[in-house]
Amino acid sequence: MAVGSPSQQPAVGKDQSNLSFILNKPHHVTFQERPVPSLASPHDVLVAVNYTGICGSDVHYYDHGAIGHFVVKDPMVLGHESAGTVVQVGSAVKTLRAGDRVALEPGYPCRRCGPCLAGHYNLCPEMVFAATPPHHGTLTGFWSAPADFCYKLPDAVSLREGALIEPLAVAVHIVRQANVVPGHSVVVMGAGPVGLLCAAVARAFGASVVASVDILQSKLDMARELAATHTYLSRRVSAEENAASVRDLIGLPDGADVVIDASGAEPSIQTSLHVVRMGGTYVQGGMGKNDITFPIMALCLKEVTAKGSFRYGPGDYKLAIDLVATGKVNVKKLISEVVSFDEAEAAFKKVKEGKVIKILIAGPNEKLEKL
Amino acid sequence: MAVGSPSQQPAVGKDQSNLSFILNKPHHVTFQERPVPSLASPHDVLVAVNYTGICGSDVHYYDHGAIGHFVVKDPMVLGHESAGTVVQVGSAVKTLRAGDRVALEPGYPCRRCGPCLAGHYNLCPEMVFAATPPHHGTLTGFWSAPADFCYKLPDAVSLREGALIEPLAVAVHIVRQANVVPGHSVVVMGAGPVGLLCAAVARAFGASVVASVDILQSKLDMARELAATHTYLSRRVSAEENAASVRDLIGLPDGADVVIDASGAEPSIQTSLHVVRMGGTYVQGGMGKNDITFPIMALCLKEVTAKGSFRYGPGDYKLAIDLVATGKVNVKKLISEVVSFDEAEAAFKKVKEGKVIKILIAGPNEKLEKL
Amino acid sequence: MAVGSPSQQPAVGKDQSNLSFILNKPHHVTFQERPVPSLASPHDVLVAVNYTGICGSDVHYYDHGAIGHFVVKDPMVLGHESAGTVVQVGSAVKTLRAGDRVALEPGYPCRRCGPCLAGHYNLCPEMVFAATPPHHGTLTGFWSAPADFCYKLPDAVSLREGALIEPLAVAVHIVRQANVVPGHSVVVMGAGPVGLLCAAVARAFGASVVASVDILQSKLDMARELAATHTYLSRRVSAEENAASVRDLIGLPDGADVVIDASGAEPSIQTSLHVVRMGGTYVQGGMGKNDITFPIMALCLKEVTAKGSFRYGPGDYKLAIDLVATGKVNVKKLISEVVSFDEAEAAFKKVKEGKVIKILIAGPNEKLEKL
Amino acid sequence: MAVGSPSQQPAVGKDQSNLSFILNKPHHVTFQERPVPSLASPHDVLVAVNYTGICGSDVHYYDHGAIGHFVVKDPMVLGHESAGTVVQVGSAVKTLRAGDRVALEPGYPCRRCGPCLAGHYNLCPEMVFAATPPHHGTLTGFWSAPADFCYKLPDAVSLREGALIEPLAVAVHIVRQANVVPGHSVVVMGAGPVGLLCAAVARAFGASVVASVDILQSKLDMARELAATHTYLSRRVSAEENAASVRDLIGLPDGADVVIDASGAEPSIQTSLHVVRMGGTYVQGGMGKNDITFPIMALCLKEVTAKGSFRYGPGDYKLAIDLVATGKVNVKKLISEVVSFDEAEAAFKKVKEGKVIKILIAGPNEKLEKL
Repeated sequence: MAVGSPSQQPAVGKDQSNLSFILNKPHHVTFQERPVPSLASPHDVLVAVNYTGICGSDVHYYDHGAIGHFVVKDPMVLGHESAGTVVQVGSAVKTLRAGDRVALEPGYPCRRCGPCLAGHYNLCPEMVFAATPPHHGTLTGFWSAPADFCYKLPDAVSLREGALIEPLAVAVHIVRQANVVPGHSVVVMGAGPVGLLCAAVARAFGASVVASVDILQSKLDMARELAATHTYLSRRVSAEENAASVRDLIGLPDGADVVIDASGAEPSIQTSLHVVRMGGTYVQGGMGKNDITFPIMALCLKEVTAKGSFRYGPGDYKLAIDLVATGKVNVKKLISEVVSFDEAEAAFKKVKEGKVIKILIAGPNEKLEKL
Repeated sequence: MAVGSPSQQPAVGKDQSNLSFILNKPHHVTFQERPVPSLASPHDVLVAVNYTGICGSDVHYYDHGAIGHFVVKDPMVLGHESAGTVVQVGSAVKTLRAGDRVALEPGYPCRRCGPCLAGHYNLCPEMVFAATPPHHGTLTGFWSAPADFCYKLPDAVSLREGALIEPLAVAVHIVRQANVVPGHSVVVMGAGPVGLLCAAVARAFGASVVASVDILQSKLDMARELAATHTYLSRRVSAEENAASVRDLIGLPDGADVVIDASGAEPSIQTSLHVVRMGGTYVQGGMGKNDITFPIMALCLKEVTAKGSFRYGPGDYKLAIDLVATGKVNVKKLISEVVSFDEAEAAFKKVKEGKVIKILIAGPNEKLEKL
Repeated sequence: MAVGSPSQQPAVGKDQSNLSFILNKPHHVTFQERPVPSLASPHDVLVAVNYTGICGSDVHYYDHGAIGHFVVKDPMVLGHESAGTVVQVGSAVKTLRAGDRVALEPGYPCRRCGPCLAGHYNLCPEMVFAATPPHHGTLTGFWSAPADFCYKLPDAVSLREGALIEPLAVAVHIVRQANVVPGHSVVVMGAGPVGLLCAAVARAFGASVVASVDILQSKLDMARELAATHTYLSRRVSAEENAASVRDLIGLPDGADVVIDASGAEPSIQTSLHVVRMGGTYVQGGMGKNDITFPIMALCLKEVTAKGSFRYGPGDYKLAIDLVATGKVNVKKLISEVVSFDEAEAAFKKVKEGKVIKILIAGPNEKLEKL
Repeated sequence: MAVGSPSQQPAVGKDQSNLSFILNKPHHVTFQERPVPSLASPHDVLVAVNYTGICGSDVHYYDHGAIGHFVVKDPMVLGHESAGTVVQVGSAVKTLRAGDRVALEPGYPCRRCGPCLAGHYNLCPEMVFAATPPHHGTLTGFWSAPADFCYKLPDAVSLREGALIEPLAVAVHIVRQANVVPGHSVVVMGAGPVGLLCAAVARAFGASVVASVDILQSKLDMARELAATHTYLSRRVSAEENAASVRDLIGLPDGADVVIDASGAEPSIQTSLHVVRMGGTYVQGGMGKNDITFPIMALCLKEVTAKGSFRYGPGDYKLAIDLVATGKVNVKKLISEVVSFDEAEAAFKKVKEGKVIKILIAGPNEKLEKL
């Protein structure tokens, strides 16, 4: 078969919609029927999108039209936390076939640069990432992607759970950056979706102590229900004082082995450095202000290892699926609601209001029965 | 032999002085004849101190009477960068004998806590460190220490070079924290004694590019003479601008593999985070303000590994001596002057004025012939 | 208080026995009342031994009077898997007090050599290890040891479980050497006590697949009950064939992430190298013949990382206790029987016959109620 | 530009030969003019081959027609150690342009499997490797390859040196597997081309002691000239005895930090395990018999880390070139002779006789002036 003709399998049925949810400019979204994508390479597959979760970054684009130097200049399809069903496979694909249910990894690296070859494709400078301008996202009917970035879901994992694999992979990557091992004490700052999942993954990695810290008791209640052995409601006191209270709470006056900031908030980051023990590890997973006041001498004198964590890399999706399949992480508890595709904008507004943990939007071809 | 009687060897001669250089309070120092220490354990040795370098921390105590929460409350002997000659060995000591020339590691851990057992004795909470209050330092005639913290100098290393092993071990520890390997590009912020030695050690570790950055051209000249492949004179511009200039200078627009801050200065630390590449490593070795404005999102989004570095640990002294013995690091170039013991205070003042790199003070029993 | 007088606490009651179980020469054992040990250092504690498990090495000394170049020349107290109760603490001990229930780590390193300082005290060339000639073991009434090698048992862990901490620490060290992380596939060759515990620990570390391999179905049944997700009864075929069958069984034609040999048997070790995947890890934990026929090109061409594992090091006991306390590893299932001190020789014979997994011998002062 | 039309640059001149050196069956080689390859992808470049070194594996195929399960069934172009000049670049190539002198990495992985994505492309099961059946090699006029596997040579590195980058990359990979750091003692078993280069690379990595061991004094002389601090001529005694002599020679009775076997010979491998220290590292780099008698308990009880090393991976070529460019490794000394393309078979015979270290064969379009 010639290059450029990657598959001879039947195309998508004519009655199927590729309706897409498009951000034109802040707070201005539209639905638009777009052409079904074709396979760009014999290594690609076409996937019908079943469910898509809404991420804070989607809402941030909806609200502000930009994140940092990523600016939405042209209309862009939103969404990147999706699971779907394979409908067409390229001629070189051996690992998937039509009908397979898959979690979609939404970023596609160049495979040729230094970071890609060295096993750090999340750091690829030519990354094409869904719903990061100028690239379209997955709130659409059909999605074409390299087969090795589409992960088959085992029977034990539903498509709805599949849509949670993306944020779970973010948490897996963070916890791996932190080198959590059995017996560790782990403090997670922030109990939003990623913070909750970090707590759950840390527990699954064998941490004996997992303490969640937040400013809202309702989030801490969910953390406790999901995974946390301890919870701490932050007070309006200095970072040192909050840190001392957290160390007291977990019974470790010398500090925790690992602290993960999943909030991005300045006071939380400061507290992190005062909670972590001599020689411990702190991972910055949450995004926030570019520059903050930071206790640099705590890092220096305690020989803290600090690491950033950005998206996910090799093996993270696979492990995330495994954690759900084996029951070690229960992502269902995070799904507040599932709505139909035409309710997408309302769903964005709900997430923005902060009253839900995770809303899933069904694909445009999905017949939705409510939870 | 009973415990408590660790050695039967002859004691120190009666004509030999244990004169000590004592800080009473800021800017008030005295010389005092103190009793020669006895061996506290059969594992200890007694060492006649030949040369002691002056460290920035010594000067800071001299100037302010405190560093952070370490406050000089009672008169304290200063000094901790020393080399000497073994004069007595405890009954259990097999590795040293009288006459051996040694570099003195000046901090003695408990050997029983978690960090000690795990191979991180520099993080021991019960560390007894010379010239860190309330513990006396090595600007004295005789020093008693565990034999495993006294490192025999090979013939190729002089006693004067031996006094430089302490700051060199600091640099070795920093470069090891940074995991520098051959081919790496390394930027060292600050070209004081430790910065200079970091540059030299990074070069000895095989770094292809070693760029020194400072605000004084004279220090950069020394960096170039010692080890640096590139030097950059910091300008009064933003950290981002200085960082861009450094990346340009070394021909690496994506940034350096490793950045070491050996300055402790806020602008240098900020610049460090903008110089380091995606997935690179930044080590904070220099001490300064507790809290600074810090580009936390650069750490997060570039997945930087940041590490503190504090003093030195297992193997650092041994490697430092090896680097000098094999000619890979030339510490002699850093010795600006050698003065006699009675000139100690004048030497402190010179260091404080910043006009010398490293002054050595001869021991009170040392007959000094000037360099 | 003077050195040599480490404690002023009351000594052991006169009515309490320090009866010891002594191997004189192969198959010739006696009971002997020996003096209660005194504290050698203010850092030591005295422990009344409650329970001691019998290890294969104890039986080997009983049977052959030697293991490798360790030869029993003088009468030696046997036993090294013990838990006991603190009866006296040295004056410098802050972490324990009389009445504390502890697991005894039975090897005491020098704390001063290269391996000790570097965090590998299990490799200390001057190690004093219980029941390794010429050092006496723990099948005795009272045991004196450094406090930092006596680990307080939490309420959730019984003294009988405490006697299993030693073999569990062996397994923890092996699994740590293997760097098992969640999602891993782990094959454990051998289902004796250490093999069973390796399977359990690997599971606790998050391995998705844990396959136990043995030549006895009864042991595999126990492995399944304890932790294994798969079991394989070795056949009298080539190592390659058994390996292919194991890979089939676990559904991983490319091989397992990690293979642990806990058997020491030549065919098992050969199979290990054919079961492990490209780039995987194999750990040799079991002891056996010094030299065997070994598939060295499998190691080379698959870039296998192979590691030896010897006893246990920093943190292993602590984690072993944590795994029992949190219910992640159920060591009770391994206790076949508990016998009184006077039944010690009969117990050794039972273990030698291979009909039990683990027998505990109560201390000479222990009033035994059978399980 | 359409896919399938990757470049619009002028093709190879009509007067230029793509003459190739082909192995038909053992000892039967022919020269054949084959069509100049076209670019298979817009990411590829076409390279005129200037020099090719002969590797032991080439000679093994010439001699036996097979290595293990790799069997030459159809006529195959030999050669895989080459440097050349870019003559055409694909439309997507940004890093190279016509005229660039490059070292050719001769193995091309799939970029999509688990090992590739995880940064271990040398373990890719779908690797296409030059002169490994059924894939043709580089003893030909023109070679087409992905641009990211063609490494630009700096001015300081000649094309002849460029042909040595392949075996140097093998040595770099081995030394990296061994984690050699400054101060290490390294013993290299075997002083053939790869063993010599391992010694040189270990030295460049800062090893203080580099001992080469071989059965031929002439090779040891070259090792000494190139890099070794010590050399040892193996005797016909037991592995333990040779090992003891090596440890004596280097003054390290406890053994070396790192031992590299670059010979593949059974006695050398056995000796390796007895030379390495407690907790040391041994890397198997040389190929030989599949199964050997191996001192497995030495590995177990000393907690040795053993690793295989296979070809090279991310960064190895880049570092190899850097080591040559900076003068840290002198590969010129290994070039025994350079012959013209029509002398290829004679060159193979010379290598087989073992009287040369490395012969280079000029490309068919190369006007040769002898060294």
